[in-house]
Amino acid sequence: MQTLTVDLGSRSYPIHVGSGLLADKNLLLPHIHGQSCFTVSNATIAPLYLDKVSASVAALRHSSVVLPDGEHHKNLDTLNQIYSHLLAQQADRQSTLLALGGGVVGDICGFAAASYQRSIDFVQLPTTLLAMVDSSVGGKTGVNHALGKNMIGAFHQPQCVLIDTDTLHTLPDRELSAGLAEVIKYGLIRDREFLGWLDDNMDSLLARDSEALTYAIYRSCQHKAEVVAADEFEAGQRALLNLGHTFGHAIESAMGYGNWLHGEAVATGMVMAAEHSMLMGWLQADEVDYIRQLLQKAKLPVVPPAEMRAEDFMRYMSVDKKVLNGTLRLILLQAMGEAVVTADFDQDALHRVLSRSL
Amino acid sequence: MQTLTVDLGSRSYPIHVGSGLLADKNLLLPHIHGQSCFTVSNATIAPLYLDKVSASVAALRHSSVVLPDGEHHKNLDTLNQIYSHLLAQQADRQSTLLALGGGVVGDICGFAAASYQRSIDFVQLPTTLLAMVDSSVGGKTGVNHALGKNMIGAFHQPQCVLIDTDTLHTLPDRELSAGLAEVIKYGLIRDREFLGWLDDNMDSLLARDSEALTYAIYRSCQHKAEVVAADEFEAGQRALLNLGHTFGHAIESAMGYGNWLHGEAVATGMVMAAEHSMLMGWLQADEVDYIRQLLQKAKLPVVPPAEMRAEDFMRYMSVDKKVLNGTLRLILLQAMGEAVVTADFDQDALHRVLSRSL
Repeated sequence: MQTLTVDLGSRSYPIHVGSGLLADKNLLLPHIHGQSCFTVSNATIAPLYLDKVSASVAALRHSSVVLPDGEHHKNLDTLNQIYSHLLAQQADRQSTLLALGGGVVGDICGFAAASYQRSIDFVQLPTTLLAMVDSSVGGKTGVNHALGKNMIGAFHQPQCVLIDTDTLHTLPDRELSAGLAEVIKYGLIRDREFLGWLDDNMDSLLARDSEALTYAIYRSCQHKAEVVAADEFEAGQRALLNLGHTFGHAIESAMGYGNWLHGEAVATGMVMAAEHSMLMGWLQADEVDYIRQLLQKAKLPVVPPAEMRAEDFMRYMSVDKKVLNGTLRLILLQAMGEAVVTADFDQDALHRVLSRSL
Repeated sequence: MQTLTVDLGSRSYPIHVGSGLLADKNLLLPHIHGQSCFTVSNATIAPLYLDKVSASVAALRHSSVVLPDGEHHKNLDTLNQIYSHLLAQQADRQSTLLALGGGVVGDICGFAAASYQRSIDFVQLPTTLLAMVDSSVGGKTGVNHALGKNMIGAFHQPQCVLIDTDTLHTLPDRELSAGLAEVIKYGLIRDREFLGWLDDNMDSLLARDSEALTYAIYRSCQHKAEVVAADEFEAGQRALLNLGHTFGHAIESAMGYGNWLHGEAVATGMVMAAEHSMLMGWLQADEVDYIRQLLQKAKLPVVPPAEMRAEDFMRYMSVDKKVLNGTLRLILLQAMGEAVVTADFDQDALHRVLSRSL
């Protein structure tokens, strides 16, 4: 087991990565301060892993809410199901929520914890690679609105993140690849050397080699933890973690949530950001090719949907949270392993990227 | 105009109390940092005062959401109306919400601000006495759930509280009295001298004498600000502000939200807390009488609904947020002007209060 800490003063918390952690009650129980806890999971994950969690918290009052699976259930109605369960079970301010599942479960459970009785504790038990390396760390929680993704939410840090790599054995191939998009992202924005390691070890990762996955997850969480510790509320550099996300969110919105996986949309978005960076003179053509090939090696898409025109992108991008006083800000690459957030970009270059006239 | 500060470090903010403040754009504009703002109001208040606010922010992009009036609209569906408006108007992270109305508008608008894009700024423009002296100060925001009042929400401090006493001229008598319950509360929990002042000046307050109201509001806000500054997240003494509220919430829930006004239920709840304190030997019978008479002078009810039995109270009180690990905590009076929060109370005395066998 590997352990690291997200350093946020009184809100600091550990991340444990390793095999068999869900069954280790000594890891979970110290982070539950009251007498009751409630697991939030979904219909796919609960049959696989809920028993392990229940056994770990057998000493406490415990019940669970099983949500329907899928991004399109990440909304206020589903959130209200959690509130109703908590109230029916008389959950109090000392109760703890356990988020057992992927990013959707973690985000919605985290926001339920942030807002139930004006905030209670929660623990992240991510079961997808995407959630392990990204959404479970850093305290961003929330739900979607019909008019925009992640538009409703709160910053609320978990008490602990327990990453049991065994849960990846049941993850569909396509979702494993989607998670690798965020892993590759850390290399692109701040770790050129990690990019090389990923290029060398991609086959092992896709074969779900335990050691390779543990290293990739641990390294990714280290990067995320460092960035979050420096900028918890995204006043500055935390925005760099959104490389590819502005384009990616537009793809997800335009294509309908869930048709493109988040990681797939981000992968394509990162290529678009790299292309934009190349047109700005910051990246070489062979570097953009290297990025495309690495993502393709991870079995990720690198070309936006043919039916999306530049106007479609602009419409969805204009409600993106990185719009500041009406000005669009983008995350671009100044070099391999070095990202920047800027509103001072070449509009013509952006249009060329969006209209696929490179 | 009188001004005081809620001292919360980087989250500190001013409270201005006086006549004609809504029309003074120099008070409002310095607290709006972006280029756009959105007023949330209700169908009763908007026709009376929205024009003044619109004129004050004429230099900015501005639109408004007018909610239906009433506590039973303080729910997730109404909250979602606000989100929809903000997204349709492309509100961004630099947008500011303005809460123009009573406690319901302030709480729901505050929670919309807390949760829209994981938190944006808001300003409180309270138009009821209750909101002026209580809910607009201190950052508690939220909505009700069918299974419990204020069960969903967040701590989110406003940028500023502008209290225009002119708006009290249109407040119904019954709501003025309800607000006075919270004013009297500050005297009961921490200011014996203020109780005497209120007793001496109750006629002026009911006659809406501007000077008397300004003093009562300013003094109340001072008390609230001191308590909130010492305990922003209600880890300790802030709970004292809930004197009468545990009993009061039970009355509101049992009778259906809105049939008893919050202040009316709190007034009766404070009498019940005083009765309980008397049975504990902390208050004299003549002191309980003094409290009853002062509340009656303010035209407030002092006896719980005849149809509520002890079991009804206990059922609703068991989901109260002041229940800690299943243990009910109550706020009682150790003396006039001195409150305490305790789980170590005489259960038999509680039962006598609830069953009206004093």
